[in-house]
Amino acid sequence: MSIQPAQMQVAPEAAVRAANRGFYAAFESLDIAQMEALWAHDEAVQCVQPGWDLLVGWEEVRGRWARIFANTKRAHIALSNEWVRVEGDVGWAACTARVTTASDEDFDEVLVQSTNIFIRRDGEWLAVAHHASAVPTSSNSTVQ
Amino acid sequence: MSIQPAQMQVAPEAAVRAANRGFYAAFESLDIAQMEALWAHDEAVQCVQPGWDLLVGWEEVRGRWARIFANTKRAHIALSNEWVRVEGDVGWAACTARVTTASDEDFDEVLVQSTNIFIRRDGEWLAVAHHASAVPTSSNSTVQ
Repeated sequence: MSIQPAQMQVAPEAAVRAANRGFYAAFESLDIAQMEALWAHDEAVQCVQPGWDLLVGWEEVRGRWARIFANTKRAHIALSNEWVRVEGDVGWAACTARVTTASDEDFDEVLVQSTNIFIRRDGEWLAVAHHASAVPTSSNSTVQ
Repeated sequence: MSIQPAQMQVAPEAAVRAANRGFYAAFESLDIAQMEALWAHDEAVQCVQPGWDLLVGWEEVRGRWARIFANTKRAHIALSNEWVRVEGDVGWAACTARVTTASDEDFDEVLVQSTNIFIRRDGEWLAVAHHASAVPTSSNSTVQ
């Protein structure tokens, strides 16, 4: 008698949450192959990182990650305040990430707010958009 | 013979693009009723604005817009670099907005990058997430 794979029974919200955590695990790994595996590789994927313009298309997005990883020796990411929502084959997560990185010359810790969008393809949730922006240490800045 | 309403024939991408433009038109109008009309009013909607923490839930999101509108005398928004994608009943738009505002005391112009997510309910595309972050005037900031 065949047994259904366990992942068939995972609720979509839990699967998107796992995909979101996998995204940050890939970031921490600094392994471009691991990051590649969780994105859709199409011309419409989008990526915004703190202090950078929008990137569109897998080649650009992959290039950015490769460059970040090449310039980073170690990364540690602590997630908090995760919110996940799923509608059909699209899921998105909002979360706060405390990103600590070390390069040859520098050490950096930033708090970023992210919105990550995933689409389901053949049962797998793939990243299609990542928008991350710095959260000021004091959140009492201007209204705008 | 009955005729199908014209909006039934609008491609989903065009409808999401129109919803995205409607969002910025509502911002420019500084009319909270106009902004209310285009959001889903549920507890899972999300909003991130430059320099502010994530807000979750319609009451919080509405309150933020009401506060911004109350503190703003005039607003002008110029959109560029719009990218729209639709998967089923979810659509999202990335765009750059040059937001010029005037209050009693101040005048401000900021360039923001936004990711806006919409869901289709009864044929209407409603905003469920808005993530906006400042784009630095020079985009050659740090890699992180």
